[in-house]
Amino acid sequence: MKIAVLPGDGIGREVVPVAHEVLKVALPDAEFLHVEVGNERYVREGVSMSPADLETVKACDCVLFGAITSPPGKPYRSIILTLRKELDLYANIRPFRSCPISPRKVNFTIYRENSEDLYMGIEEITGDEARSVRVITRKASERIARAACSKPGIGKLTIVHKSNVLKADELFKDACAQVAKSMNVPFEDMLVDTTAYNLVRAPEKFDTIVTTNMFGDILSDEAAALIGSLGLSPSANVGDRYALFEPVHGSAPDIAGKGIANPFAAVLSAGMLLDWAGRPEMARAVQTAVDRTIDEGVLTPDLGGRNTTLQVQSAILKNLESI
Amino acid sequence: MKIAVLPGDGIGREVVPVAHEVLKVALPDAEFLHVEVGNERYVREGVSMSPADLETVKACDCVLFGAITSPPGKPYRSIILTLRKELDLYANIRPFRSCPISPRKVNFTIYRENSEDLYMGIEEITGDEARSVRVITRKASERIARAACSKPGIGKLTIVHKSNVLKADELFKDACAQVAKSMNVPFEDMLVDTTAYNLVRAPEKFDTIVTTNMFGDILSDEAAALIGSLGLSPSANVGDRYALFEPVHGSAPDIAGKGIANPFAAVLSAGMLLDWAGRPEMARAVQTAVDRTIDEGVLTPDLGGRNTTLQVQSAILKNLESI
Ligand SMILES: CC(C)[C@H](C(=O)O)[C@@H](O)C(=O)O
Ligand SMILES: CC(C)[C@H](C(=O)O)[C@@H](O)C(=O)O
Repeated sequence: MKIAVLPGDGIGREVVPVAHEVLKVALPDAEFLHVEVGNERYVREGVSMSPADLETVKACDCVLFGAITSPPGKPYRSIILTLRKELDLYANIRPFRSCPISPRKVNFTIYRENSEDLYMGIEEITGDEARSVRVITRKASERIARAACSKPGIGKLTIVHKSNVLKADELFKDACAQVAKSMNVPFEDMLVDTTAYNLVRAPEKFDTIVTTNMFGDILSDEAAALIGSLGLSPSANVGDRYALFEPVHGSAPDIAGKGIANPFAAVLSAGMLLDWAGRPEMARAVQTAVDRTIDEGVLTPDLGGRNTTLQVQSAILKNLESI
Repeated sequence: MKIAVLPGDGIGREVVPVAHEVLKVALPDAEFLHVEVGNERYVREGVSMSPADLETVKACDCVLFGAITSPPGKPYRSIILTLRKELDLYANIRPFRSCPISPRKVNFTIYRENSEDLYMGIEEITGDEARSVRVITRKASERIARAACSKPGIGKLTIVHKSNVLKADELFKDACAQVAKSMNVPFEDMLVDTTAYNLVRAPEKFDTIVTTNMFGDILSDEAAALIGSLGLSPSANVGDRYALFEPVHGSAPDIAGKGIANPFAAVLSAGMLLDWAGRPEMARAVQTAVDRTIDEGVLTPDLGGRNTTLQVQSAILKNLESI
């Protein structure tokens, strides 16, 4: 197993090394390839990710990714969007599992379609008018629905759409419903605005959500707030050949370099990597080690604690050893 | 002043009469024209809103609107979208002010662009692919920004967009920023996903949000959850010539006809009508009457109470008299 390690910018460079340490313990035979991408490299070398970097990544099985600082104003092709596209990572999987310090008790997963919608970059700006094209295809809708319906132990699928305004979403809804039927998964459908409401009102009622790209982007940040922090929210970007694992949070330039970045989301993302790599027992161990560390109160300042990134790392590794 | 009264379907027929009673007290000289529109009429007469109805509405100054049941599956042109378009109601204004039973203390307003974005119905479905066009123009962006910056007592404008993915949103962001600058309103900008997160994490930090149509749709339902219920969330759809006032909630067919529908959002929408009509002191009185009624515990079952719609109406009218 070859794993490309792309810390990126800002606190990506502080939290990815922690996840890397965890993977070294959990997957002792894995080979790690370090690739520097991002804005800090761009500023230094005029390139943020070269074609050769992309080849290195494609020679690996999967990617451990940090976060990127996008330079304000500059014309900049997002690295994470490039990777999602180049590696055909069509399923963005974001589990929301509350932990001891979460304000709400929740346990659900959002499957976000990761390849089309308004993310295709099909835009025409003429003078003072912009037209952006939102593409929805049956093929991509079925593909993400199949991924969602394959979630181990799935209880119910909620298909989230805006079909009272967009005919396109009748297509999405129908494609997902067909897949759920054929896979014998109980399902319901819900408008995206109603879902934004219900996530706050009764998040415990959700099990598995499938939705289009942009709606998934918005709803997953809302959901991260329910578990208490973006800093506790891991994600997997999965395709048929490759997968990429990243914390949902950004590069947080304001606190970067201080040694106090919260590594939990990165470590939990490494946990998702272990699941994907066919090591569910190790994935569970990582989750348990994180839970215990939080329980012990070993927390970075963003979570109300007083610990450093390295102290959290030590606690996680110690807990992992003892499992 | 001529007011068209369009209760629509379901609980719209139970809550709009309460708002109507309030307006009869607050605007004794107003003339009210009742127009039946919606699905119940469609089922009976094969038409949900006729051209003549639209003429009647256009002969009025503003509209008190309830809610519409959209028939599942049928090709159906949404009445509220038709009215927003025909009356050129380009600003959708949704205040979120917590009341005594709200779980969070908040007080902010969302100004949602109400005329373009993915709501223009420009879609092409060919076989298994749908392409929907998202239109953003400088003109409409400036218009909604001017409406937002004109909010009495505005403290800070937050411009919400997704410019890290959509070039169109650079246009929106820039147009709003120019307007804010020229009107001397302090402003910041925020990604829509970050906003969905911050609304749950720190809603007290918002003052006035301006955003595009679909993002506004999603964020305003999320915000309604923060004040405790869609049943407490009023709205105004405002243009240069007309205005329409409606509760944000739907027609709730499941509880319609039982006499237990919650009329607060409809009454608060009537309050917004009073503000628009140049009667701010009456608008404040309606708000105070609603607050007192809630404080007294006169609540419908959806808010945890045991009262009927008519009991809530009596309490509001009594409180209104005593102010
Ligand atoms: C950085 C940005 C392009 C990205 C997205 O919009 O998908 C991010 O918000 C995410 O959710 O992974
Ligand atoms: C009913 C629907 C078309 C409408 C919208 O999407 O604007 C509603 O959700 C709203 O927020 O007023």
